[in-house]
Amino acid sequence: MTWTTAQHIALAFDFPVVFTRNAFDPENAALAEVFGRSGPGPHRAGVVIDAGLAAAMPGLADRARAYCAVHDAAIRLVAPPLTVPGGERAKADFAVVEAVWKLTYEAKLCRQSFLVVIGGGAVLDAAGFAAATAHRGVRLIRMPSTALAQNDAGVGVKNGVNAFGRKNYIGAFAPPYAVINDHALLATLPAREIRSGLAEAVKVAVVRDADFFARLCELAPLLAALDCDALEEADRRCAVAHLEHIASGGDPFEMGSARPLDFGHWAAHALEEATGGDMRHGEAVAVGMALDTLYAARVGLLPRADADAVLGLLEQLGLAVWHPALANLDMPAAVEAFREHLGGRLHLTLPTAIGRRIEVHDVDYASLAAARETLAGRGVPSGPACPGE
Amino acid sequence: MTWTTAQHIALAFDFPVVFTRNAFDPENAALAEVFGRSGPGPHRAGVVIDAGLAAAMPGLADRARAYCAVHDAAIRLVAPPLTVPGGERAKADFAVVEAVWKLTYEAKLCRQSFLVVIGGGAVLDAAGFAAATAHRGVRLIRMPSTALAQNDAGVGVKNGVNAFGRKNYIGAFAPPYAVINDHALLATLPAREIRSGLAEAVKVAVVRDADFFARLCELAPLLAALDCDALEEADRRCAVAHLEHIASGGDPFEMGSARPLDFGHWAAHALEEATGGDMRHGEAVAVGMALDTLYAARVGLLPRADADAVLGLLEQLGLAVWHPALANLDMPAAVEAFREHLGGRLHLTLPTAIGRRIEVHDVDYASLAAARETLAGRGVPSGPACPGE
Repeated sequence: MTWTTAQHIALAFDFPVVFTRNAFDPENAALAEVFGRSGPGPHRAGVVIDAGLAAAMPGLADRARAYCAVHDAAIRLVAPPLTVPGGERAKADFAVVEAVWKLTYEAKLCRQSFLVVIGGGAVLDAAGFAAATAHRGVRLIRMPSTALAQNDAGVGVKNGVNAFGRKNYIGAFAPPYAVINDHALLATLPAREIRSGLAEAVKVAVVRDADFFARLCELAPLLAALDCDALEEADRRCAVAHLEHIASGGDPFEMGSARPLDFGHWAAHALEEATGGDMRHGEAVAVGMALDTLYAARVGLLPRADADAVLGLLEQLGLAVWHPALANLDMPAAVEAFREHLGGRLHLTLPTAIGRRIEVHDVDYASLAAARETLAGRGVPSGPACPGE
Repeated sequence: MTWTTAQHIALAFDFPVVFTRNAFDPENAALAEVFGRSGPGPHRAGVVIDAGLAAAMPGLADRARAYCAVHDAAIRLVAPPLTVPGGERAKADFAVVEAVWKLTYEAKLCRQSFLVVIGGGAVLDAAGFAAATAHRGVRLIRMPSTALAQNDAGVGVKNGVNAFGRKNYIGAFAPPYAVINDHALLATLPAREIRSGLAEAVKVAVVRDADFFARLCELAPLLAALDCDALEEADRRCAVAHLEHIASGGDPFEMGSARPLDFGHWAAHALEEATGGDMRHGEAVAVGMALDTLYAARVGLLPRADADAVLGLLEQLGLAVWHPALANLDMPAAVEAFREHLGGRLHLTLPTAIGRRIEVHDVDYASLAAARETLAGRGVPSGPACPGE
């Protein structure tokens, strides 16, 4: 009486990640070429701009419009650029999501139309969720405007907004149609933002690329001074490492046991929630990595010298390894919330050497508390988490 | 200065579609086995039930709970079954979506937990969208409770809710973890619902399976009398045709030119919107197919005898081929709304013989109006669209 048929569905997504400067210079063909990948144009498009970026770069919306006008064989801008609140507010509720849904509806963007989203990670996440769900997905071109977005989330396959006090509780896996990493968009970022973005570079270096770690140590004085070329190199290398991790893991939508590169992120998520957005994501990741690095050393997984190297690099880059909110964190609850978000059994990524990682499934909370104690003793170095900067 | 890296992501989804009867009979292992596919249990699960079904089948929620208790090695029900409004109301706004998000949050369902949704197509669509987006996707087991849901949407890869007055404006492509088609769930359906579900069987037969069309003609008297075995055969064959269409098309998420099997659906969507939900989806599809069949014949694509056979089968099954709302429909606007939803160039599926189809990209509206005239002349046969039934 019972009869089963097995359904098999195979999907492939191919998208370019373009590293460039001044993407809206009319002479720069990169963006128009991305539109051209979908056949003869012009293709309908809407543009969403992060208000923070728009304020820092007056004229950006006009330059985007002018670019589309010059490249009108490829791009037909069918609505004025929509400016939405930037920063964590963008994903604190559904306001940005709904504004972008309204744009797609009113501008009659169809599933083969384009939405170009220019902004920080939170705007990319919220507008990206809207793009992924309007008509079950219009084509999204991400133009990340923070170091963090360019080197990590902006090149990935996720989007989302917060709900129930949880980061990214509502979201989807949805590869973009293309990513344009325009280094010039980073020009006006505050030093704190730029430095915060370096945390993800340290992360991928520590858990998967010893050569990159060595290079970061070499570049550290230049990076600490926010040298443009050094930052571009670090960000690009970090982005490519994330791209490789997603593509090579065999489970890009994390349906099974595949994990994102989330070393240090259980504590980071909890710290961001606990501080109500006062910490930048990268700042929280730096503290989270420092904690897990000391924990790994304490439980004998990581040589002490390697742990010192990780903390030393973070501090050299001006990233604080301690935040007072960590002192009060309910660590078992934070680990459990992290497990629940990823699903299934707990997987924590820890380094076993510079460039190598393992997944652990249990936490020795006494050792973790001891690691926290040690970290508290390191105090707060000069850096972006200092009050007054 | 510009440098591009090509990201390639490959994904595979495998899910079983189980045809059974009395899935909550403790002796029926089908549902527990679906949980077992994900490894040793018990696995956390929540259950969502369509209020219409719950009313028609008193004790269903209790039977579901009892089933989980018997199969506690596989299933751990972590919250009482949640009953949500059924029918088109379920997807008219975000109320059901939000209720299911709240359930997943409060019951601490993670990405490797399960949500079992039992109900008609609208509840599956709304709760399915919530499941696809909570934690970026918890595992969804669909138990469709209408013929239409069992033979079409319930086995597919889409979900969604209405917005801006448009059907399914917000949604996602998200394969289920499994589908359990329990024929016993259909036992209490009103005759009108069951008959409406046959429209999709006619659809797949007309545009892709001449043998199935012949079989439907053979079974027509039994189907018209709502014979249980005949309905089960028709529904199963229809479901399998939909599964094959999705898997074999090479573009299951419809990112390019691949199309769902949507013969007759442009007018159906418009009729459903115009009548504010008074027409069942299948009833609207029957009228839409009749219109497009006559149009195909009028423009010389389809032999007249085949057109007569299609209309004859619909009428034999008790499906009306005309609805007064069609008389006032702005047909060019409806075609354009349909094009926009699917995206890109217009693709309308028309039959060129029983079992064969082509895609056309232009409409001769004079011929379409003439086809509508002809259809109006056929009047309203005895059938489910008659007032008073």
